Amino acid sequence: MVKEHITLTEAWEILRSYVPHEPCVESVQVAQSFGRILSSDVIADRNIPHFNASAVDGYAILSKHTAGATPATPVTLSNGFQWVNTGMPVNSDYDSVLMVEDSSIINNELIITKSLTAGENVRPIGEDVSIGQVAAKMGDEVSPSLAALFIALGFSHVPVYRLPRTVYIPTGDEIITASEWLSYEEAPYGKTAESNSAMITGYFKNWGFPIDCVDTVADDPKQICNALESVHDKYDLALIGAGSAKGEKDYTSCVLKEYGEIFFHWLLMKPARPTMFGRYKDCCVVNLPGFPMSSAAALWSVAYPLLKILHTGGFDEDSVLSEALCSYGEALPMPLIMAHSSPAGKTEWVRLKAVELDGVKTVYPLSSGSSTMWAIAEADGVAVLPESRIECQKGSEINVYFTRNIEWKKRILFQGSNDPAFERLGSFVKKYGGELVTRSVGSLGGLAALSRGEAHLASCHLLDGKSGKYNDSYIEKMRGEEKWERILLFWREQGIIVIKGNPQNIKGVEDFARDDVSIINRQPGAGTRVLLDYMLEESKIRPDEVKGYYCQSITHFDAANRVAAGLASATIAIRVAASSELTFIPITVEPYELIIPEKYLDHKGIRALMRAIEDSEWRAQVEKMGGYRWEK
Amino acid sequence: MVKEHITLTEAWEILRSYVPHEPCVESVQVAQSFGRILSSDVIADRNIPHFNASAVDGYAILSKHTAGATPATPVTLSNGFQWVNTGMPVNSDYDSVLMVEDSSIINNELIITKSLTAGENVRPIGEDVSIGQVAAKMGDEVSPSLAALFIALGFSHVPVYRLPRTVYIPTGDEIITASEWLSYEEAPYGKTAESNSAMITGYFKNWGFPIDCVDTVADDPKQICNALESVHDKYDLALIGAGSAKGEKDYTSCVLKEYGEIFFHWLLMKPARPTMFGRYKDCCVVNLPGFPMSSAAALWSVAYPLLKILHTGGFDEDSVLSEALCSYGEALPMPLIMAHSSPAGKTEWVRLKAVELDGVKTVYPLSSGSSTMWAIAEADGVAVLPESRIECQKGSEINVYFTRNIEWKKRILFQGSNDPAFERLGSFVKKYGGELVTRSVGSLGGLAALSRGEAHLASCHLLDGKSGKYNDSYIEKMRGEEKWERILLFWREQGIIVIKGNPQNIKGVEDFARDDVSIINRQPGAGTRVLLDYMLEESKIRPDEVKGYYCQSITHFDAANRVAAGLASATIAIRVAASSELTFIPITVEPYELIIPEKYLDHKGIRALMRAIEDSEWRAQVEKMGGYRWEK
Repeated sequence: MVKEHITLTEAWEILRSYVPHEPCVESVQVAQSFGRILSSDVIADRNIPHFNASAVDGYAILSKHTAGATPATPVTLSNGFQWVNTGMPVNSDYDSVLMVEDSSIINNELIITKSLTAGENVRPIGEDVSIGQVAAKMGDEVSPSLAALFIALGFSHVPVYRLPRTVYIPTGDEIITASEWLSYEEAPYGKTAESNSAMITGYFKNWGFPIDCVDTVADDPKQICNALESVHDKYDLALIGAGSAKGEKDYTSCVLKEYGEIFFHWLLMKPARPTMFGRYKDCCVVNLPGFPMSSAAALWSVAYPLLKILHTGGFDEDSVLSEALCSYGEALPMPLIMAHSSPAGKTEWVRLKAVELDGVKTVYPLSSGSSTMWAIAEADGVAVLPESRIECQKGSEINVYFTRNIEWKKRILFQGSNDPAFERLGSFVKKYGGELVTRSVGSLGGLAALSRGEAHLASCHLLDGKSGKYNDSYIEKMRGEEKWERILLFWREQGIIVIKGNPQNIKGVEDFARDDVSIINRQPGAGTRVLLDYMLEESKIRPDEVKGYYCQSITHFDAANRVAAGLASATIAIRVAASSELTFIPITVEPYELIIPEKYLDHKGIRALMRAIEDSEWRAQVEKMGGYRWEK
Repeated sequence: MVKEHITLTEAWEILRSYVPHEPCVESVQVAQSFGRILSSDVIADRNIPHFNASAVDGYAILSKHTAGATPATPVTLSNGFQWVNTGMPVNSDYDSVLMVEDSSIINNELIITKSLTAGENVRPIGEDVSIGQVAAKMGDEVSPSLAALFIALGFSHVPVYRLPRTVYIPTGDEIITASEWLSYEEAPYGKTAESNSAMITGYFKNWGFPIDCVDTVADDPKQICNALESVHDKYDLALIGAGSAKGEKDYTSCVLKEYGEIFFHWLLMKPARPTMFGRYKDCCVVNLPGFPMSSAAALWSVAYPLLKILHTGGFDEDSVLSEALCSYGEALPMPLIMAHSSPAGKTEWVRLKAVELDGVKTVYPLSSGSSTMWAIAEADGVAVLPESRIECQKGSEINVYFTRNIEWKKRILFQGSNDPAFERLGSFVKKYGGELVTRSVGSLGGLAALSRGEAHLASCHLLDGKSGKYNDSYIEKMRGEEKWERILLFWREQGIIVIKGNPQNIKGVEDFARDDVSIINRQPGAGTRVLLDYMLEESKIRPDEVKGYYCQSITHFDAANRVAAGLASATIAIRVAASSELTFIPITVEPYELIIPEKYLDHKGIRALMRAIEDSEWRAQVEKMGGYRWEK
């Protein structure tokens, strides 16, 4: 019976009930056993130490010969003692060891200044581990120190659970293998790199499980079936990349319905809804959706728990996701800097960025879809919001699995106007001992974030149409009682970006009202949108006369890309966004200012930033980008 | 200038100042780059996606052709649309994609039931990453998702810091290599396995750093010097195992004084005091003390921070120990179950075991010296107590680096009488979903721990001399108001253990007063000691008439081992402790009872224990051990 549209908890129950609980075991060399899980107790059949060993450097001696010895009343012995180094045997003529510090040798006689008891400074046979003792327990992971213990106990091999064998089968007509992809000078039109296997391989490496990847299979049930047929008897688990979707494109499920079995399909989860679990003959099959974040979520939530079952017979619900994510420990409750809406009735995977603000460690969601790869790589951690969690207010706590070590005291959060030259500052801030995290929310958004205490610094380039001056009036309005430091970082050229050669002959904003012209605008609050609004007003054009006025991007590059992609005729952006396929028509030069509340000036990260903006290497990079000036 | 007897903080300062801060960089294949650290920003020179891609399965279309479409007012189109799968290109004839769910095809005509805006369901060029964007930052670790992003961006190689090259040189006349050690049927007298390299190799593997190990070098300055000479130009760091001690045995320091340089020697740290840092020509040298726990502490606290400097130019003091220990996250403050005394003026490394008692997560120290390997392997975590921390009261918090994932709800803490058959229960408790942690404190110690709320269960075999009955009176006295469940686990044979063949012809406790007989006793509160006291009183022998009465062991095996080692004539212990070199003289058969407070009967771990003691496989193991009976 296929279960459909089920929760993750239900999926885990199905995994547990459909998979044989008796894991396979094997014997491996201790030197190869790091990270493996013991399949039974290891009982010592040697003692450690296996002889009475000296615990110090000194003289083996009979304790009764030291009776009454003190520095004031030393005892002298002419024979009946023997030098031993630490770790050397104390033979049966002796019952203790006098430390070298408590003795001296004068005329071949031993001068003893301390009285010993029997057994003193001797590590007796079996002190560390005795024959018959449980030296390590079934289920223990072989740690570095346990491997050393096994060697010392004389074990060359130890019994461990066999690792599950996995194969990854990418599918998709548009997908080409990484090696072919990397061989092209330019990315071939309409094709996509098979990059998921790099991510999946990386996770398997971190988990300590082996995986093989086979060549990409076309979107064709027959070929998928052939691929499964050729691998099923060599692997415990086949992961199929993509190949499951709505409607007639549901290839993998066709194959399993006819030649195997499906246990569940469609999860109440975002992303990774199309995840499927079934089997082909004796091989478990998990279908991972194709988009990177969906693939990752299915890998973490379904493939990893399944691997744990195949490996050791089960998994711990409290820690399985933390392990799957290679997280630094358990999920920690962290307050959200800003509100987040989660879909009702679905488990949601949220990528998060972390920052400490005014002594409180907080997180905010990286807003991006399941198709984006960058946000997974950029995230500091992940939260798994349960089906019941819908509205997360600002300040409410969510449980975060951190996937990266965070140096909280170094990190500063920038919110403000998007600028590529500013972004390049990151590695220079790092060089001077800080860490810069940037969030593009536009000039007004940045000032508002500062005034709400949600950032360490902001930037703006806001033209006040009334005064004709930049920034002053906006800052005055937003800063309240706080003192804000202003730093004029640089001047930037703003202009109109059009298709290369300007085929529509756009000369200025006045052309934006033309019937054959459409634009991409920036989001409300962006300085660039404020500039456009000012120029439209000057030209006496109303926004609803401009096609595309309400289509918006949040970065200069994104806006320019949409023009290059033919989705609009023009946009307003800075010169650096005009790639070789675009033409830049200059309009104005504007000041780009950094705004830093005075209370943060002594922050480690801000201090690093102040040094970074003076760095000549960064300045050289900015000059090379073009469209920037240090002086007006 | 050699700095001596310094704190760890001072040692770190010296590491930083003596090591070149400019790390080496290299270019590695993305497929080999997992876990490596980027040595510079990676700037995208391709867009992702590099064409306008469909975000859904459906029909590419011009949005203006969908104006006004709803399920009630569908729009019909006979041409100007094209089927696209998710990820396929949307060519310049179209500006949006209609989801298959919002359409149907009737007589080759497309029926549209949703109105689209320009760009809807299209992932425009560069949506994920744009040319010129900082795709990954200097200092980022290459995560699985970052590797996938690099592939998608068309990078075959990425710039990373070169990994530091390390060699481990074990020293010591008594040390033989692991392979030779494992080749012997029996451990050769007076020799010790070179097992530290297994531990060290394991840590390097976890850290992702390469390491080579060379053959053991004798305790001889010349040979140590030769070893350094032959490796110094191939490695950044040479770790020397042992070879540094008090007095004339200080071989490594002799070598470095003459042919290299010593930067510091002797740390205010327990263990690992003899740790030394210097250089031989251009190769850094760290001397790791020989005892396993000392070696580990020096590895974590000095070698790892040094490796971080050699690798990336520096380390973060807040996280370096957590990383070195491969800990699950930051150190967490945890209350101590029992008091602990730390040495004044020294950093102390304490191995800890963890357990949740009455809803409070707590830890207790595993008391054992730097020579023991078992306690390192057994520990759940480590605390680093600073020099200023001397007396830690019961309940006071210490910061714990957890080195193992703990399933708190499953785990039960046993304190009580040491018994090898009981210890074997561990894997069976695990089989039934619990986890058993045992601490040998003797029968009285166990009951006292129960009454103080420091254990989930205890065991005892305490003879009441007055009544001649076992356990009843002791339990009544200790349980206070609580209800304690009693389970008679088995009966055990107690007896006198002597050297094989009983050369001293010891027949009973009455012989313990003889001049030529000495014993090993058990600690106060052990049921076995209570038994001895009872028998001595019966024989009218005073304790001070018995030689060795005050020499004590805390387990049956340890006591028997000391007899086997010739440190005493006899001990009282259970039959199973009498190895083939010993003879067992039976005295009595005693009941061994488990005591469980009623409030814990429903604990997951206790429920598992209840099933485990009925397991026929465990019972068969116990019967095979000998000296146990189910019925009197």
